[in-house]
Amino acid sequence: MILIGIDPGSRVCGYGLIQAQGKVITAAGCDVIDVSPQPDLPKRLTHLFAGIEAVLDEYKPDLAVVESMFYHKNVKSVFTLGQARGVILLALARRGIPIYEYSPREIKKAVVGNGGASKKQVRFMIEQLFKLKGSDKPDDAYDALAIAMCHFNRIKLAV
Amino acid sequence: MILIGIDPGSRVCGYGLIQAQGKVITAAGCDVIDVSPQPDLPKRLTHLFAGIEAVLDEYKPDLAVVESMFYHKNVKSVFTLGQARGVILLALARRGIPIYEYSPREIKKAVVGNGGASKKQVRFMIEQLFKLKGSDKPDDAYDALAIAMCHFNRIKLAV
Repeated sequence: MILIGIDPGSRVCGYGLIQAQGKVITAAGCDVIDVSPQPDLPKRLTHLFAGIEAVLDEYKPDLAVVESMFYHKNVKSVFTLGQARGVILLALARRGIPIYEYSPREIKKAVVGNGGASKKQVRFMIEQLFKLKGSDKPDDAYDALAIAMCHFNRIKLAV
Repeated sequence: MILIGIDPGSRVCGYGLIQAQGKVITAAGCDVIDVSPQPDLPKRLTHLFAGIEAVLDEYKPDLAVVESMFYHKNVKSVFTLGQARGVILLALARRGIPIYEYSPREIKKAVVGNGGASKKQVRFMIEQLFKLKGSDKPDDAYDALAIAMCHFNRIKLAV
């Protein structure tokens, strides 16, 4: 089974793929879709949608795990992030990929054991877990692996 | 020139089309895309996107006018509305349709002369303007015509 974790962003969106065989997992790929050079939000959304579609075509994940919202952010950021997330959900839903959602706190707690963990701590745990030490991928790509990992832990426990 | 006004919503989305020939305008159509029967947000977004695409295919508007945000709404509503609006912007941007944005206050001020006007007042003015008296379209469809009208007033004044 292939799980894709997605860390939505209107400028930089992280994604990470986990291949699970029983209780054994490996990281099948992770990176970011960087649409920040685009001049406006409609163009960023178009490139984000095309970028996500390309990743889905390449890896054909069986399910997707998408971070839900930081409710403490300012309203304007929430609105912009919402627009990016809408486009991501659309790309997944049009392919009939089941979508699971977790809050940032749930994800950090599942991966680091502490809902208030820093990005550095998440990165460290993901590096250890998937033996990615020395990779130069951006933090958002690691966050996306953590998002997928959070759901894998739930289904593993449920088996 | 054909302008489409869009009143974004995650459950009910209004749209209204205005045909402008010089300074003369007529309403070319208005209605709502009602995705509220869909069971979850990803499915609502999929149907909203398909609905907007069908309207764009039918009317082939030259430009689009989309309401921007109510910043006073609660953060969760803002986030949900953002996700719907992202999908609408994507449908427009993928067709290369130029997008203009106005706040609810600007729209009401342009159409009724008062930024704090009620939905009833907006409906009344749009009915008068386009001789739509007796139409049973929902308020969101009238709001969408008002959104398109707001931009038409700007470009008319600029000629």
